[in-house]
Amino acid sequence: MKVAFIGLGNMGSHMARNLLRARHDVTVWNRTLAKAEDLRAQGAEVAQSPAEAAKEVEVVITMLADDHAVESAVLHPGGVLESLPKGAAHISMSTISVALSRKLAEEHAKRGHQYVAAPVFGRPEAAEAATLFVVVAGGKVAVERLKPLLEAVGQRVFVMGDKPEMANVVKLSGNFLIASVIESVGEAVALTRQYGVDPQQFVEFLTNSLFAAPVYKTYGGIIADEKYQPAGFKIRLGLKDIRLALAAAESVDVPLPVASMIRDHMLTAIARGMEDMDWSATAKLAAENAGLK
Amino acid sequence: MKVAFIGLGNMGSHMARNLLRARHDVTVWNRTLAKAEDLRAQGAEVAQSPAEAAKEVEVVITMLADDHAVESAVLHPGGVLESLPKGAAHISMSTISVALSRKLAEEHAKRGHQYVAAPVFGRPEAAEAATLFVVVAGGKVAVERLKPLLEAVGQRVFVMGDKPEMANVVKLSGNFLIASVIESVGEAVALTRQYGVDPQQFVEFLTNSLFAAPVYKTYGGIIADEKYQPAGFKIRLGLKDIRLALAAAESVDVPLPVASMIRDHMLTAIARGMEDMDWSATAKLAAENAGLK
Amino acid sequence: MKVAFIGLGNMGSHMARNLLRARHDVTVWNRTLAKAEDLRAQGAEVAQSPAEAAKEVEVVITMLADDHAVESAVLHPGGVLESLPKGAAHISMSTISVALSRKLAEEHAKRGHQYVAAPVFGRPEAAEAATLFVVVAGGKVAVERLKPLLEAVGQRVFVMGDKPEMANVVKLSGNFLIASVIESVGEAVALTRQYGVDPQQFVEFLTNSLFAAPVYKTYGGIIADEKYQPAGFKIRLGLKDIRLALAAAESVDVPLPVASMIRDHMLTAIARGMEDMDWSATAKLAAENAGLK
Amino acid sequence: MKVAFIGLGNMGSHMARNLLRARHDVTVWNRTLAKAEDLRAQGAEVAQSPAEAAKEVEVVITMLADDHAVESAVLHPGGVLESLPKGAAHISMSTISVALSRKLAEEHAKRGHQYVAAPVFGRPEAAEAATLFVVVAGGKVAVERLKPLLEAVGQRVFVMGDKPEMANVVKLSGNFLIASVIESVGEAVALTRQYGVDPQQFVEFLTNSLFAAPVYKTYGGIIADEKYQPAGFKIRLGLKDIRLALAAAESVDVPLPVASMIRDHMLTAIARGMEDMDWSATAKLAAENAGLK
Repeated sequence: MKVAFIGLGNMGSHMARNLLRARHDVTVWNRTLAKAEDLRAQGAEVAQSPAEAAKEVEVVITMLADDHAVESAVLHPGGVLESLPKGAAHISMSTISVALSRKLAEEHAKRGHQYVAAPVFGRPEAAEAATLFVVVAGGKVAVERLKPLLEAVGQRVFVMGDKPEMANVVKLSGNFLIASVIESVGEAVALTRQYGVDPQQFVEFLTNSLFAAPVYKTYGGIIADEKYQPAGFKIRLGLKDIRLALAAAESVDVPLPVASMIRDHMLTAIARGMEDMDWSATAKLAAENAGLK
Repeated sequence: MKVAFIGLGNMGSHMARNLLRARHDVTVWNRTLAKAEDLRAQGAEVAQSPAEAAKEVEVVITMLADDHAVESAVLHPGGVLESLPKGAAHISMSTISVALSRKLAEEHAKRGHQYVAAPVFGRPEAAEAATLFVVVAGGKVAVERLKPLLEAVGQRVFVMGDKPEMANVVKLSGNFLIASVIESVGEAVALTRQYGVDPQQFVEFLTNSLFAAPVYKTYGGIIADEKYQPAGFKIRLGLKDIRLALAAAESVDVPLPVASMIRDHMLTAIARGMEDMDWSATAKLAAENAGLK
Repeated sequence: MKVAFIGLGNMGSHMARNLLRARHDVTVWNRTLAKAEDLRAQGAEVAQSPAEAAKEVEVVITMLADDHAVESAVLHPGGVLESLPKGAAHISMSTISVALSRKLAEEHAKRGHQYVAAPVFGRPEAAEAATLFVVVAGGKVAVERLKPLLEAVGQRVFVMGDKPEMANVVKLSGNFLIASVIESVGEAVALTRQYGVDPQQFVEFLTNSLFAAPVYKTYGGIIADEKYQPAGFKIRLGLKDIRLALAAAESVDVPLPVASMIRDHMLTAIARGMEDMDWSATAKLAAENAGLK
Repeated sequence: MKVAFIGLGNMGSHMARNLLRARHDVTVWNRTLAKAEDLRAQGAEVAQSPAEAAKEVEVVITMLADDHAVESAVLHPGGVLESLPKGAAHISMSTISVALSRKLAEEHAKRGHQYVAAPVFGRPEAAEAATLFVVVAGGKVAVERLKPLLEAVGQRVFVMGDKPEMANVVKLSGNFLIASVIESVGEAVALTRQYGVDPQQFVEFLTNSLFAAPVYKTYGGIIADEKYQPAGFKIRLGLKDIRLALAAAESVDVPLPVASMIRDHMLTAIARGMEDMDWSATAKLAAENAGLK
């Protein structure tokens, strides 16, 4: 398919490359063009603006940092909306707010575009290996038609429903659940360390019994090693995602007490000087709050 | 080995049977003797009191409901302490308080007994299949000597340290982590349901991606099905374990904010009429607090 | 002084009247003009738009429902900014976000206006009796010059600092503290009721000993009487103020854990059907969570 | 009346003196007898044990540090129960658990004693000035008969009901409400300080408007001055009282989420090194969690 790929960060550059490998015809755009040069060498065309990239494509994919970047690249002058042909589709793969996803759905509907949300789970290595987990929602026909693109970047695609925002809320919920694992394992490690239990052995036990899941392995390891730097995902970014989850919940009158608590702990960690650390530094806060070190 | 097994509930009866199968010489005791008859048929001897059971054995194992039951069977008149020979060992497999475990350690030490704590993770089916996870702590020599018994009832034995209470605190931490999974998944399911996401599909996604662990499968399934009865583990029992975790933490000045919140939610669920439900009914509370149903 | 008064709701109409009584020259504007007629009869002029009202005055006062209403009346076309003369002042008395207060400060500074924030504490009866408590912040000269106007509507004026947003954050903190009183008294009444203590007697005790403050009397009375309707201040408005307090705090990396908890309880109360009740209905939620009634 | 007064700490010594002043016939006992000498000089008799003190009196009053001290002085050998005459009364004025109060009620009932609980609010200066607030509960006849004694030590007596434990739960609730004021004012001061508001001015505003109550003045002052030492009431004692409130609530299935949060913050403050400070040091924790200093 003829695809525009907007956003070549740590994740997007790998995803665009995987689309090229799957023999799609890809035009890329990035705010700093230097990042596009690598992809040009691998066969991508490089556009000067999102609008230029989206002109004459069947599908535009956005993979950007936040709401602000997506608004700029899609809704503002020089953005995707200016040029995307009627009948073409937009796959929004960024982690954005439910509110923005709704707005995008409206704007695309007015112009006769298809719009699906398809955020992903996984770190840059998974993006490189095309082993991301993709969560997609949107009109059935559109989702079916676009699935091959999603399969080109991920190991598995989960369809969540016919309204795009459903995928966004699942993505935010997923990140909230990861943060909950960090928080609860952080507290449990603080407690058991105070009793003299070796954190490595404790995590070894967890991840070889009831909690044998990737997220416990990844974050259990970081917590046991107290290796919060370099940050895989900075705590302010984690805070942003928890804030989006709380906002999505508030807009339908749903309390998320664990998320509220995590938000408080992230703010505390930042205020106490852990701003440059990984979002799992809430576990470092838990250790300090237990009097460790 | 010559073993006394005290406590033949849903878990203990299977565990005692597995010891018989492993060709140990087992004397059993249970508060209601009827439960012992099955085991007699399978080769166990049946004692009239814990003291009688513990007489002349190398090892006594307790697998009882709570602190109170262990105190009765071990410390009170007619209890294990009265007769357990010098040099023999006590393996405490019940989920008990750290405080009681410390007290048992002292009492046994005075009498020249070995004492190890070896609580288990798993439901009755796992006890039956001898696939429990066993967490053990205590003196090195004792642990090594007693390991074959633990291996006869579990699929894997994790050694946590040389003080018995370390195993107890790991057990309580593990139950706290399970309760945290229930709480956070309950909140996430409430949120996504409000957006129209099917809970089965949501849990299907979780357990086939980052959260592919037994505990998410078991409790995710219950939450998606809203099947809180019959209770696998009643909410008051869950509350008791969270209380023990909080007490263990308080005694070393460690806060466990997520556990505190779960305690409040369990009390609320009970006060609102869910007393006879599974401890995962905190997820039902989360759904009701989100205005569902 | 020549004053424009924008916003004639339950509070503003009384405040404007008190300015007339203090012999100021008052022009009023309200979105629904009917409300202005009463004041015309008492000597006010009535303008057709905020811009018209603010033309040729020394001071414009806004007393509106929320950020949105203030933005409309001040920043949008037909708003105060269009006509307020250089050197004139804007007193913002509404409960608005710190972010909007900052923005107003900037916009007024660009145009050579003085800008002070002066939110008030008190219910409509206090506005009528000119016994409000006024919290003011802004440039010293401006505050001194404008004080007589504030004294005309309140019993006491507290100066908080030289940046207008300081008054806004004090107002939001004050509302947070009121909500904290409601929450904690609600929990304590639920507990003591479960022990058979009469809530009237309990509140009588509180407000005649350590907690002899107006806020305990007002809300203690509502809670003891369980009289959450008619709402003096609806729960969604309370939620809005808590949200503004949390946002003000988040923007300077400050956690407010009690406010987070209150937010969750307000959302829960709304989700459980208390949307039309007073914001003190979080105490009703506390009672229900304790199994009462 | 002929009265035995057990417990001559910071509070009890003043209270016993006020009974002497009211011309009661007072025998005192204290664990360390030195403290009793002052009172002997003022006309008290000094006993060698609680049992000796309680012999032949009409009323015994206990004013001790905690459950443990009351159990020792009343229930253990050499305690009040051994000698208190049938028909005599016990007024328990200590802050004790509801569970112990129940037990005392039972034990006294068995022996034909009257038993009322009458805990007090106030600091040592109030005890000295006989301006304590007294909360009493117990059988009507007993309460009426004993009121003059309570009036001799306090400025006002509040009757809470006919079961002694009702007074205990009111006392614990009162302390919980004080702790809630500390927590919420601590958070609000942290927030407003981050905006540059002077904490003295902020507290001045609070205590001269909606929050004009003694508890806001006392603790608002400490928080504004950051004067957490010397401790008026050490944080571990505060933690003990919050724990008793949570236990009283748990035994009737009542959640107290704000109390749970305060408990976590007190533990954190202790773990972070504030063990020797006043219980209002949770406000210091709030300031540090906001990045202050």
